[in-house]
Amino acid sequence: MKKKENILIVGAGLCGSLLALRLGQRGYKVTVMESRPDLRKVDISVGRSINLAFSDRGIKAMNMVGLTDKVMPLCIPMRGRLVHDVQGNTFMANYSGREDEYINSISRGDLNSLLLTEAEEHEAVDIVFNKECTGIDIEENIATFHCYETKKEMQLKADVIIGTDGAGSILRKSYYLERKFLFSYSQNFLNHGYKELSIPATKTGGFRTEKNALHIWPRGNFMIIALPNLDGSFTVTLFLSYDEGEYNFNNLTTKEIVQEFFEKEFPDLVPLIPELTTEYFENPTAPLGTVKCSPWSYKNNTLLMGDAAHAIVPFYGQGMNASFEDVVVLNEVLDQYEGDWEKVFKVYEKTRKKDTDAIADLAIDNYYEMRDHVANPIFKEKRKLEIDLEKAFPETYFSKYSMVTFNEDIPYSKAMEIGRAQDKALLNLIIDDEIDTTADLQEILKKVQEETNEILDEDNVAKTMKH
Amino acid sequence: MKKKENILIVGAGLCGSLLALRLGQRGYKVTVMESRPDLRKVDISVGRSINLAFSDRGIKAMNMVGLTDKVMPLCIPMRGRLVHDVQGNTFMANYSGREDEYINSISRGDLNSLLLTEAEEHEAVDIVFNKECTGIDIEENIATFHCYETKKEMQLKADVIIGTDGAGSILRKSYYLERKFLFSYSQNFLNHGYKELSIPATKTGGFRTEKNALHIWPRGNFMIIALPNLDGSFTVTLFLSYDEGEYNFNNLTTKEIVQEFFEKEFPDLVPLIPELTTEYFENPTAPLGTVKCSPWSYKNNTLLMGDAAHAIVPFYGQGMNASFEDVVVLNEVLDQYEGDWEKVFKVYEKTRKKDTDAIADLAIDNYYEMRDHVANPIFKEKRKLEIDLEKAFPETYFSKYSMVTFNEDIPYSKAMEIGRAQDKALLNLIIDDEIDTTADLQEILKKVQEETNEILDEDNVAKTMKH
Repeated sequence: MKKKENILIVGAGLCGSLLALRLGQRGYKVTVMESRPDLRKVDISVGRSINLAFSDRGIKAMNMVGLTDKVMPLCIPMRGRLVHDVQGNTFMANYSGREDEYINSISRGDLNSLLLTEAEEHEAVDIVFNKECTGIDIEENIATFHCYETKKEMQLKADVIIGTDGAGSILRKSYYLERKFLFSYSQNFLNHGYKELSIPATKTGGFRTEKNALHIWPRGNFMIIALPNLDGSFTVTLFLSYDEGEYNFNNLTTKEIVQEFFEKEFPDLVPLIPELTTEYFENPTAPLGTVKCSPWSYKNNTLLMGDAAHAIVPFYGQGMNASFEDVVVLNEVLDQYEGDWEKVFKVYEKTRKKDTDAIADLAIDNYYEMRDHVANPIFKEKRKLEIDLEKAFPETYFSKYSMVTFNEDIPYSKAMEIGRAQDKALLNLIIDDEIDTTADLQEILKKVQEETNEILDEDNVAKTMKH
Repeated sequence: MKKKENILIVGAGLCGSLLALRLGQRGYKVTVMESRPDLRKVDISVGRSINLAFSDRGIKAMNMVGLTDKVMPLCIPMRGRLVHDVQGNTFMANYSGREDEYINSISRGDLNSLLLTEAEEHEAVDIVFNKECTGIDIEENIATFHCYETKKEMQLKADVIIGTDGAGSILRKSYYLERKFLFSYSQNFLNHGYKELSIPATKTGGFRTEKNALHIWPRGNFMIIALPNLDGSFTVTLFLSYDEGEYNFNNLTTKEIVQEFFEKEFPDLVPLIPELTTEYFENPTAPLGTVKCSPWSYKNNTLLMGDAAHAIVPFYGQGMNASFEDVVVLNEVLDQYEGDWEKVFKVYEKTRKKDTDAIADLAIDNYYEMRDHVANPIFKEKRKLEIDLEKAFPETYFSKYSMVTFNEDIPYSKAMEIGRAQDKALLNLIIDDEIDTTADLQEILKKVQEETNEILDEDNVAKTMKH
């Protein structure tokens, strides 16, 4: 076999560092260039998302690189949504009827550090920090970097350049601006932005509220969530409109109004956030956007992966999992076509794009579910029924959430197609009073399956006629 | 009432010239800047789309400005699709079961000329040609132009700037690049491009094939269409993939291959296009893209309209009609909120965007319908049934095509919602053999209506739970 090529990876975030590790394991010579400092030496997480939901698709990727045993100790299981109403009452809504299905809270920094360290153990993998990519010549495969230390420019040439440089990708920008091919591209922002706050640990390092849950304060048009950290703290995120509704980011301009807003809407949360108004004004408000594009690659030269190819909103807890799954899929395509990068890139996109498109759409749906429907009686009845079905038929019944989150062998696109039909079937059966909730679960299962299949059949007929 | 503001319109195409006329009628001082020469003096249509489908939404706009009587003589009625199979057999598929429902072929140049002339009759309307907009300062409302005659730059300041500068809009580009606000934006290309050819008139100025039809040569993955011109010629458009299939734009590289492709796939067309291979290589191949964006306006300063705000693919024959309808909707919003441009812009987008999004999606659906389904037996049965229903119940039954094309008072978004449900109902009833086509039409109508309503109900439940 011929000598393996030099790969340049732009961006040492979660996707880039996992990719570097895997390509190192496969024997490639890999250089990773990262604009920020080494996060193992400098704390750079201030005011940014610092914990993430980690689930089965991510775990599959860790299995691939043999890191599962090192990652699991970093995880805090979250078994369900702990919903807080405006009076401070709470109820727990489990993510699944199966005991072994839960999601995990994990620190972005801890996980990224682990991946960087493991990648660097391969002699042929080099990771260089403080080098910001300023442009990529996709024809000549030359990337230009600004070095924050020397303040100088430098250029690197590689056989292949892979952009894992996130939602603001420079590689993607060069596809857009160079107009060498028809580049389909979309950036879509929600009307809502987000801001991070925090619940500190108790003095003894304990958790001030339930540890093993994803907390939600749903308020219809806005919401707060909180995820636990290993040190006993919680990262809290407020999702709110920029300019709509009585309270919004544009009109929460003084400490008094912020305090009033929280005391009115989130009274049980106020005592848990001692630095509320300080954090509110110190931490940035960030937008929530979805990016889709195509093609992801140019010739056998360059490829986009992770958020650079498909940035999604965070509401399904699948952003990192989807990026990790990218590396799993690329790895499988490499098993088949290694040596022919153009083929690898084309097959990879053909295999993968429908799934990243699907999770992008599902993530937006889930925003409405989290901020609003979790507190809706019909939705609650539906979820209760699904949990009962999953308990009674653990091998047979899978909710949309389960398919997306816990069934890494069901592609996102398939999970979306079946899951949406199943949701539609359940909601219609409940609303039309066609389910007798005292009936035998076996009978209910049969009814749900029949109705779901009918919806899928009807959709298929319409789809065949569409495309 | 206070003195009306100065309006600068960038682009004197169909939308810009109609807008100038209407704003002139409303008493505004209007300057229109156009990059191309005056098309009344110079023929600039070579190799570009020269005829368009004109239907009821467009006619409503002509009624608004009092031009209907002058436009109708420019029209050639097309009563349906005349479908040509590969053996040269043809069949006619009418657009409607109602006699008075048909679309019209109209010359882009003739219509644009008329609108320019009518707009210029208003003393307060100025149209300036050969001035290319190179940038717009959306904060200061200053647009910069390059004059092709003097080769110099010039700047214009206005109270309001409206960009009707088409799919490649400079105003839209400045929204995107200046990043003064979160700008959601998408450009999506089909894998197919298009190329124009022509069937000349006979020596006596007659039509070489049926005059009152839109001709289609559907071939599954590609197609040709032809629309009549007043002079007896037809404008022919080939829609073909760039790189997929046995024949595509990338591999049709010699006169021999082009000739072979046409003789194999479009044998009855070859004798009608005497300059086939010459035109094929002289005329450009152009891409087919959809552009969506939001917001369309910035403060009370600038607004995007027409293709600049929502470029669509041509397959529903609604591009011009949608742009004209933009002016109708803006005119209605001005009736309500004249004097407060920011309010006008916001209400206009809120009213209009769901409809331009809908026609963009419908236009893509129709591509598959035209190139493929028109020749499909189930689709043909469905269309036949719809025509029968429209004939029998002219006041009651409207196909999706009729709602979109002939019912200007049904918004595109409503036409899409109801039309898609109705199509799904019809196709499922036909495929499941639930319609006895020998049965009483009244019974069939009832069945279709019930099934459609059921689908709409089920969709509504799912939608409520979604957003």
